[in-house]
Amino acid sequence: MKPEELSIDCLGQPSIPSPLAIISGRKYIGNDSKILYNPHFGSNQVQTEEQRSLGFELAGPREKLFFDPKKAKVAIVTCGGLCPGINTVIRNLVNHLWQLYGCQNIVGIKYGFNGLKPEPIEKTVKLTPKVVNHIDADGGSYLGCSRGTPPKEEIVERLITLGIDVLFVIGGDGTMRGAFQIYSEIKKRGLAIGIVGIPKTIDNDIPYVKRSFGFSTAVAQAADVIRAAHVEASALMRGIGLVKLMGRHAGYIAANACLSSGHVDFCLVPEISFRLEGEGGLLDLVGRVLDKKSSAIIVVAEGAGQEYFYTSAKQRDASGNEVLHDIGYYLKNLLKKHFSHLTPAVSIKYIDPGYIIRSAPANSTDQLFCARFAHNAVHAAFAGKTGLMIGYWHGRMTHVPLEIVCGKNQLIDPTGDLWFNVLETTGQPVNI
Amino acid sequence: MKPEELSIDCLGQPSIPSPLAIISGRKYIGNDSKILYNPHFGSNQVQTEEQRSLGFELAGPREKLFFDPKKAKVAIVTCGGLCPGINTVIRNLVNHLWQLYGCQNIVGIKYGFNGLKPEPIEKTVKLTPKVVNHIDADGGSYLGCSRGTPPKEEIVERLITLGIDVLFVIGGDGTMRGAFQIYSEIKKRGLAIGIVGIPKTIDNDIPYVKRSFGFSTAVAQAADVIRAAHVEASALMRGIGLVKLMGRHAGYIAANACLSSGHVDFCLVPEISFRLEGEGGLLDLVGRVLDKKSSAIIVVAEGAGQEYFYTSAKQRDASGNEVLHDIGYYLKNLLKKHFSHLTPAVSIKYIDPGYIIRSAPANSTDQLFCARFAHNAVHAAFAGKTGLMIGYWHGRMTHVPLEIVCGKNQLIDPTGDLWFNVLETTGQPVNI
Amino acid sequence: MKPEELSIDCLGQPSIPSPLAIISGRKYIGNDSKILYNPHFGSNQVQTEEQRSLGFELAGPREKLFFDPKKAKVAIVTCGGLCPGINTVIRNLVNHLWQLYGCQNIVGIKYGFNGLKPEPIEKTVKLTPKVVNHIDADGGSYLGCSRGTPPKEEIVERLITLGIDVLFVIGGDGTMRGAFQIYSEIKKRGLAIGIVGIPKTIDNDIPYVKRSFGFSTAVAQAADVIRAAHVEASALMRGIGLVKLMGRHAGYIAANACLSSGHVDFCLVPEISFRLEGEGGLLDLVGRVLDKKSSAIIVVAEGAGQEYFYTSAKQRDASGNEVLHDIGYYLKNLLKKHFSHLTPAVSIKYIDPGYIIRSAPANSTDQLFCARFAHNAVHAAFAGKTGLMIGYWHGRMTHVPLEIVCGKNQLIDPTGDLWFNVLETTGQPVNI
Amino acid sequence: MKPEELSIDCLGQPSIPSPLAIISGRKYIGNDSKILYNPHFGSNQVQTEEQRSLGFELAGPREKLFFDPKKAKVAIVTCGGLCPGINTVIRNLVNHLWQLYGCQNIVGIKYGFNGLKPEPIEKTVKLTPKVVNHIDADGGSYLGCSRGTPPKEEIVERLITLGIDVLFVIGGDGTMRGAFQIYSEIKKRGLAIGIVGIPKTIDNDIPYVKRSFGFSTAVAQAADVIRAAHVEASALMRGIGLVKLMGRHAGYIAANACLSSGHVDFCLVPEISFRLEGEGGLLDLVGRVLDKKSSAIIVVAEGAGQEYFYTSAKQRDASGNEVLHDIGYYLKNLLKKHFSHLTPAVSIKYIDPGYIIRSAPANSTDQLFCARFAHNAVHAAFAGKTGLMIGYWHGRMTHVPLEIVCGKNQLIDPTGDLWFNVLETTGQPVNI
Repeated sequence: MKPEELSIDCLGQPSIPSPLAIISGRKYIGNDSKILYNPHFGSNQVQTEEQRSLGFELAGPREKLFFDPKKAKVAIVTCGGLCPGINTVIRNLVNHLWQLYGCQNIVGIKYGFNGLKPEPIEKTVKLTPKVVNHIDADGGSYLGCSRGTPPKEEIVERLITLGIDVLFVIGGDGTMRGAFQIYSEIKKRGLAIGIVGIPKTIDNDIPYVKRSFGFSTAVAQAADVIRAAHVEASALMRGIGLVKLMGRHAGYIAANACLSSGHVDFCLVPEISFRLEGEGGLLDLVGRVLDKKSSAIIVVAEGAGQEYFYTSAKQRDASGNEVLHDIGYYLKNLLKKHFSHLTPAVSIKYIDPGYIIRSAPANSTDQLFCARFAHNAVHAAFAGKTGLMIGYWHGRMTHVPLEIVCGKNQLIDPTGDLWFNVLETTGQPVNI
Repeated sequence: MKPEELSIDCLGQPSIPSPLAIISGRKYIGNDSKILYNPHFGSNQVQTEEQRSLGFELAGPREKLFFDPKKAKVAIVTCGGLCPGINTVIRNLVNHLWQLYGCQNIVGIKYGFNGLKPEPIEKTVKLTPKVVNHIDADGGSYLGCSRGTPPKEEIVERLITLGIDVLFVIGGDGTMRGAFQIYSEIKKRGLAIGIVGIPKTIDNDIPYVKRSFGFSTAVAQAADVIRAAHVEASALMRGIGLVKLMGRHAGYIAANACLSSGHVDFCLVPEISFRLEGEGGLLDLVGRVLDKKSSAIIVVAEGAGQEYFYTSAKQRDASGNEVLHDIGYYLKNLLKKHFSHLTPAVSIKYIDPGYIIRSAPANSTDQLFCARFAHNAVHAAFAGKTGLMIGYWHGRMTHVPLEIVCGKNQLIDPTGDLWFNVLETTGQPVNI
Repeated sequence: MKPEELSIDCLGQPSIPSPLAIISGRKYIGNDSKILYNPHFGSNQVQTEEQRSLGFELAGPREKLFFDPKKAKVAIVTCGGLCPGINTVIRNLVNHLWQLYGCQNIVGIKYGFNGLKPEPIEKTVKLTPKVVNHIDADGGSYLGCSRGTPPKEEIVERLITLGIDVLFVIGGDGTMRGAFQIYSEIKKRGLAIGIVGIPKTIDNDIPYVKRSFGFSTAVAQAADVIRAAHVEASALMRGIGLVKLMGRHAGYIAANACLSSGHVDFCLVPEISFRLEGEGGLLDLVGRVLDKKSSAIIVVAEGAGQEYFYTSAKQRDASGNEVLHDIGYYLKNLLKKHFSHLTPAVSIKYIDPGYIIRSAPANSTDQLFCARFAHNAVHAAFAGKTGLMIGYWHGRMTHVPLEIVCGKNQLIDPTGDLWFNVLETTGQPVNI
Repeated sequence: MKPEELSIDCLGQPSIPSPLAIISGRKYIGNDSKILYNPHFGSNQVQTEEQRSLGFELAGPREKLFFDPKKAKVAIVTCGGLCPGINTVIRNLVNHLWQLYGCQNIVGIKYGFNGLKPEPIEKTVKLTPKVVNHIDADGGSYLGCSRGTPPKEEIVERLITLGIDVLFVIGGDGTMRGAFQIYSEIKKRGLAIGIVGIPKTIDNDIPYVKRSFGFSTAVAQAADVIRAAHVEASALMRGIGLVKLMGRHAGYIAANACLSSGHVDFCLVPEISFRLEGEGGLLDLVGRVLDKKSSAIIVVAEGAGQEYFYTSAKQRDASGNEVLHDIGYYLKNLLKKHFSHLTPAVSIKYIDPGYIIRSAPANSTDQLFCARFAHNAVHAAFAGKTGLMIGYWHGRMTHVPLEIVCGKNQLIDPTGDLWFNVLETTGQPVNI
């Protein structure tokens, strides 16, 4: 990544004075206000002058707008799987557009990018503060979701037909890839349609977004489920609680839920491989924990241990995500077999709480966080910025070019604080 | 059932004045205080004089005790699967014994009846108010549970060896069967050991117990899961939420959770058979709901639709319960196949939240209810009553002979209020 | 109370066949189906034949209707203070009217009986299943509340003007008194307008309603607050937690919250007087508890200890309720003064959580319970029954004439189970 | 602040190899690893080279220890008012000391610094993983708290008598001032006793701690209370909900709870003065909101508007905190008077939920966060670092010299993001 790669595209020179009365006497955010990519220093952190100028543009209200809020028509679309907080983002987008900028022409696209097909299944939905007033009390998406991106040309045609000036895209890495393609097609055609992404990833794996909305809620829900597994396992003479959590590429939910619950003996994540058999392998270690305290709790992220499945070809779903093999079910059977000779028998309590976690409404922490993403997306859009996603870095909301987001995943650093904290808390060995 | 079948056995003539200072100036409960079995009347309820004298003995403090609380040694055992509130019952038993009666010789048996084997895996646990002070904040059982009953002779021998005067047995129908056998063996030998049962049934299916402890919590947890299924299904173009809930013989959790959540289209319980195929069958009806509102929610109790599995021999678990076929998984696959021709595809969100529901700590309603069961069990035990279970009938705690409990299940009445309310709320036809 | 006093008035002979398809093959409830007022028997319960025929009419669907659901116009009004579950009752009334009976002419009256004044502040609100779909997620009343009843003649005029056939009145004892006056005025004029009450009382003090909707939620909320007081008090060297709870005439919330939380040392209710000063008085007893365990928890219902305030004249609020003196504040100051000489000082943590408790949304248990009240109110109304309130007795929904409800309060029996359980749990003396 | 002011004192040269096996193959944190104080740049952020080298030392495990964990004796003390998460910090300190470092000589000091008086009221408490195993399920402090600091000389004498090597001090700004005095006294005497602070501030106002533990829980609780006020106020014809929240110097809880709940019309904090009377003053603005939507919600931090109380002398509590005047009560009366002429009358629902918020157990987010503070405090202590507090800056745990913490408060920046977000969300004018 070079400094110039972080520059944000703009549809044109903003010239309309911002209507934000609440700024009065205070400063708008300048486009050159940035936050360092890496604020660490010391003997381990030799930095060149270039590195010292590598930073993300700060999000926030700009003094001049590109779009006239009174005339602009904006659309909101939500894609991919569910995540706590989607409705709070929608509600805050609408309220902010309407009440702060005075933009009253807002439509919701039904069922993800598929709602932007030439012949969509459902019409767009008119969105007003009244319509969205209570939707944040529910989980899920008021607009509905779906996976997959129709051809970018068709989508751009549809945006033109609908007269959309700005499209807010709420979605994960696949969706941001789609958003980048749509943005590129728009740019190719020289259209003045803005594309502003809001990262939605329950796995917390979108790069340059330290914490994504809904993540706090997901961890809280996951920690509750781990407590359930702990209660079940510890009521038995030899009980193993096994919980499969979300995390295709990145084990953030598993790691954080382990830290939050404090009851976990083994945390398995995609970033760190582990042995099953042999001395010091997982099965051996679980046996030792059982001997010591009669119950054991294992948390496994869905993407962990995929190397144990040998397959010739990978399957992909409509979002282009590889279909994972079920490591939870695999471990359950393996553990059962491994301990089948013991009396009293080992009992395995396996919980796969995916839907329960995904569909929860945002907790207080996420309600607030969703608002920040939504508000800054609106500021960016009216300033004419496009081809970007709202990021979150060292406590500040930022602008991140969609281009540098695509095809990457944010992963747990096996040598970093988080994984160290997991090892501290579980007591599991560094190498299993 | 005849009036004489409701009489409660006693180990002998109680002669020790009760130490309950808090009674002062108020009345103890007399042994002939009863509550009518059937308090309804009208043209549909012709009652003979005998029926009018059929009632359960009321539970509560007695004026004279059989056991001297200062000398008695009591034991507590928890059997079967988990249920919210077990720890609250244990805590209230211990506090009540200790603080109200002054009985300080209390032991906990580990891991159910298996902890009363001649050579148990673990020793008994000394129980004091301090030890149990915070256990009700957790779900599960502080003493551990297990299924199965060792030979009654062995258990009685063990009770003699331990010097137990009263055994409190917390468990379900299988456990009450075991408790009755132990009671019978004690009676045969002419021993003065009391057996007092406290019904624990998350399914709410123990007869003469209108509502069991933990049931309110279980319904609340189940309703939350149904909401999750509803959120998932309604975010999709064609979504079916399918939730499997507990209920081997009786669909009380399913029925009450449907009423509580208000989002369910079909509630399937063991008491009421249903057709799958054909016009007006479940698959056909689900299709119609999908056409009408694009999503459908089905709740199925685990014991429902077992007639769809043709098997030569039934399997039983260690508690003697028949091993059920997985109706949830079966329905999931059937629905998937039935709607496989549609575009956009039907997506089925299947949730099986058993462990999460069972392991929850008791909610406020159940905390209070657990206390009532525990307190009345202590009153009964010190009065020398034995071979009984604490029941709950028309709002009052009662004494129920173990003998009439065994081998029966309380079931939903297909012509009664509860099922009528379910039909009112779901809108499903009377006959599917 | 005599059997004839329990008879329910009807606007005329019902003759329209019920449209309830879901009844098919099952029985409607007959008007002579009753539940005994007192189902207890034994030496303490000598019953005459008359007493044996004293019972409440069972609620439920009737075979013949008085009103044609297609033509009837119904109104809903909510009066008095807030209580958890009001919105759930409204939602269930609307859904049941619309979906089960096919009645689509439903209006909501804004802000209680004041919305039925000749010149109301706000118009009526059209209610449909869509409008009320999510209101039960919030506490409070969707229609708004107010205290006080305008002249009955004006209200009846307004009902005629609006063309209302049935008025559902959700409110407490003052409201039921108002409803009875309106019913009487209608009867005097010979009009065919039905008045059906649904009891709303967070204090649980309406007679012939063993448990009112919202009560379970209120107790759970109150128990949480007691836990907060316990945490505060026990973190101090000498801490007293003092919690004032609702309960003008009846201490049900205080009593049940004490049982549910299990942390309370003293529970003070309106039904049972207590001494403050002297040996064995409250201040003395609190001192002893402080000496023993360094913290003490007192729960006081707002109506308790009113005898300590000597006043010449009583004040009344708009609902006609006597304005109570603030016993919580009085106790706080008294305790502070009484223990002012101690070092380290006593610290008093006083919590008055009224609004927090009242405004909570209904919990799962109450959601279900609200539905039962609402559904049975609809059944009663269409059968032409009037001048009644839905009651709850020995587990069944009943019809109760408004006349026998007025001017009475359901109170805790100082010699009954509930208060005995409180004494068992708090350990406080019978006479303070 | 100059770079040298951020240097951390050490009791001596660490020479004992760390026993942390889990580090294997990964790097310990070096003492020169730092995080920039200000990572922003751009035209508004001209930085000198000195500013570019101004950063906090990163917390984390060090390669060499000063204390031998097998021999060291450590103590934990909790001071000041309650805050969610104190017990989680205690539990994590104990577990980390015991399991990771092998230090088994851990004592708890009862009731704050007062427990370190020459003749403390209560003895120290032996702490083990078993003792602290479930304490985090409860709010409050397992060790008890108190305000005030006895003479530093006495405390140091007591530490010597008890043989303490490291004292972990959990407390707020007053406590950190006390900790600095104790540290200074120890330094003066040349003793090898480490003082390590863990910032506890429900107000979030300790400098160099972007977010303190318990803050997420407090905001969530506060947002719930605001929802209660909103429900109450909006059920009335003219309802004002008024909520007083914590925040003596800094309005973080008020500001964040407003953002989280989304229902607030006016947020009043200590950092920003406001007019009450006159056009555009608070009373006038509240009237306008009432006219527009019939209800209004005001949130006021306890330290706001203190300028409205003219007093000759300030009172201080035992912690040295100024006793604040009750702005909530003042506003309640002022609003009542201001709107007394209206019909229908304005009803004011005033809630002061302080104890309920403070005493809550930590939520999932804080559980995890508490663990990080505790773990890093242990790392710092064993490395011999002293006179420091654990900080949190740009997402990383840091070491902050106690000296620079004293006498300052972290405040909301009226020109920064947070306050801007509050204005965006409430719609209140910049200047009231």
